[in-house]
Amino acid sequence: MSTDCIFCKIAAGEIPATKVYEDDQVVAFEDIQPVAPVHVLVIPRKHLASVNDLHAGDSALLGALFAAIQRVAQEKGVAESGYRVITNAGKDSGQAVFHLHFHVIGGRKLGPLA
Amino acid sequence: MSTDCIFCKIAAGEIPATKVYEDDQVVAFEDIQPVAPVHVLVIPRKHLASVNDLHAGDSALLGALFAAIQRVAQEKGVAESGYRVITNAGKDSGQAVFHLHFHVIGGRKLGPLA
Repeated sequence: MSTDCIFCKIAAGEIPATKVYEDDQVVAFEDIQPVAPVHVLVIPRKHLASVNDLHAGDSALLGALFAAIQRVAQEKGVAESGYRVITNAGKDSGQAVFHLHFHVIGGRKLGPLA
Repeated sequence: MSTDCIFCKIAAGEIPATKVYEDDQVVAFEDIQPVAPVHVLVIPRKHLASVNDLHAGDSALLGALFAAIQRVAQEKGVAESGYRVITNAGKDSGQAVFHLHFHVIGGRKLGPLA
């Protein structure tokens, strides 16, 4: 855990969030500035700044993250209608919080990729 | 391999593409309709329609996909400046080819998520 990281604090329950799923490796919660009817963030409990920080030993963590992404899409009712999974890394991408997170976005016809 | 899938054919070398990386599990190639200076698609050789089709046994494949994504970002010079990783699933997302693919997009300030 990084002591000044807002997503570490959400994972630890120190900052409130509307959680939609959690297990021993992963937490999913509503984005507070949703860009679509469904907009959930899926994060590892472990602090990684971005996808740049994933290492060879993180395959099981990626499996857990994508299992959670699938589950969120199912529970939010967008698994069939469609959804977008996005992770931003670094300044040009608009990454705002430097704890790896995957946006799960759906519930409307989505726009351009970037 | 799905015999009528364009990305399976690219992975197999039956349809030309500008490949930027490949190994036994993953192929990366330039998007033919780039939305930014860097726009590469990273796909598994194995045919999966979308993230909806990932299963519990696919963690190592996810590890290989994200290792390739990191490598593409490094080689294209956007690992530090920033990049976005996107995968679309289903109609609302705009998924155009039903073989799992991750867009790696960078080289400019990116716009909205969706």
